[in-house]
Amino acid sequence: MSSTDATHTDATPAEAHAHHGYITEKERYLNRLSRIEGQVRGLGRMVEDERYCIDILTQVSAVTKALETVALGLLDDHLRHCVADAAASGGPGVEEKIAEASAAISRLVRS
Amino acid sequence: MSSTDATHTDATPAEAHAHHGYITEKERYLNRLSRIEGQVRGLGRMVEDERYCIDILTQVSAVTKALETVALGLLDDHLRHCVADAAASGGPGVEEKIAEASAAISRLVRS
Amino acid sequence: MSSTDATHTDATPAEAHAHHGYITEKERYLNRLSRIEGQVRGLGRMVEDERYCIDILTQVSAVTKALETVALGLLDDHLRHCVADAAASGGPGVEEKIAEASAAISRLVRS
Amino acid sequence: MSSTDATHTDATPAEAHAHHGYITEKERYLNRLSRIEGQVRGLGRMVEDERYCIDILTQVSAVTKALETVALGLLDDHLRHCVADAAASGGPGVEEKIAEASAAISRLVRS
Repeated sequence: MSSTDATHTDATPAEAHAHHGYITEKERYLNRLSRIEGQVRGLGRMVEDERYCIDILTQVSAVTKALETVALGLLDDHLRHCVADAAASGGPGVEEKIAEASAAISRLVRS
Repeated sequence: MSSTDATHTDATPAEAHAHHGYITEKERYLNRLSRIEGQVRGLGRMVEDERYCIDILTQVSAVTKALETVALGLLDDHLRHCVADAAASGGPGVEEKIAEASAAISRLVRS
Repeated sequence: MSSTDATHTDATPAEAHAHHGYITEKERYLNRLSRIEGQVRGLGRMVEDERYCIDILTQVSAVTKALETVALGLLDDHLRHCVADAAASGGPGVEEKIAEASAAISRLVRS
Repeated sequence: MSSTDATHTDATPAEAHAHHGYITEKERYLNRLSRIEGQVRGLGRMVEDERYCIDILTQVSAVTKALETVALGLLDDHLRHCVADAAASGGPGVEEKIAEASAAISRLVRS
């Protein structure tokens, strides 16, 4: 994240993507995803150890819920920043942004 | 729906709620909901006739999917009109609108 | 399913289908479905009255949850009676019953 | 779980749990979970690189679907082996097994 080149401090990668709303919460998302990765690895150990199916299923449901929480957070950030900004700036982009968001919501609801 | 008071024709109920985006598609939503109502009535007949559980479950999944399609349509309309309009007008209402939309999405994903 | 033995004509339809586990709870299922039908009709009225999208979405989620509860109940009954009976009787039918149940579960999870 | 009876030490862990139906497919489950773990790690990289929210959401939906497929497979195995065996042996355990399975299905449907 640190920019060692003073001549380019006006456009760090983070600033260049500043419309990606989740950046302010980036660490929180990374921590959550890292935890979820550990949970999936734990599922592998449960299968390896031939644990009781129902216990594995309970854990799968927990991982799915954790992923949903990440998805709902990203979507909220997206609406709050990307979609709202496009709408505020009045360009034609807002239609496309909302169509994208609706498609993503549809995939989440149906997955 | 009809306004008998000529002095108020400039604000019929429909116009007063014109920010409710689904209005243009109202008939389509009503037709879909009427069809879903018939499907639920059909589920009752299947139980009444003691039809095979699995066949009833197949039909329940079809009704759930039809309801989801209605919900995703309403949500898309809501983003397209209510949220985008609030964002475009630049008022403080956009935060609240997006919080509401995110909560509704969360309920849909988890239901 | 038809009985060619006249001495068994006293088998009512309910008895003839006695392996359909939900029968003992039939009234409860019918009441629930009747309530869900009323909820769907209520959704139609909300659209007709041009109620706020988010309120309609909240109600759609409630109906979806109510349908899921019906489906999970039917599935539990099915496992408890149909599948368990097939397994207990040791015939080849149990494989097919379980494949059917798994397919129904899959449709529910993905709907 | 520990066996205090030295005369039964010839039961390997795998044999001791031989009623856990997924064992025959153990490698397949481990491969799938390993792939899912990689997908979650990929999600972390996408957030790290500040990729477009919608693209991350698409990938979250793919991971959720992959986890569901694992869960539905485990559940099918469980019904096929654990539940069917309990029913065939006629003991009182079948009720409990089915209650457990129904609770797991309910968590999956609602997650």
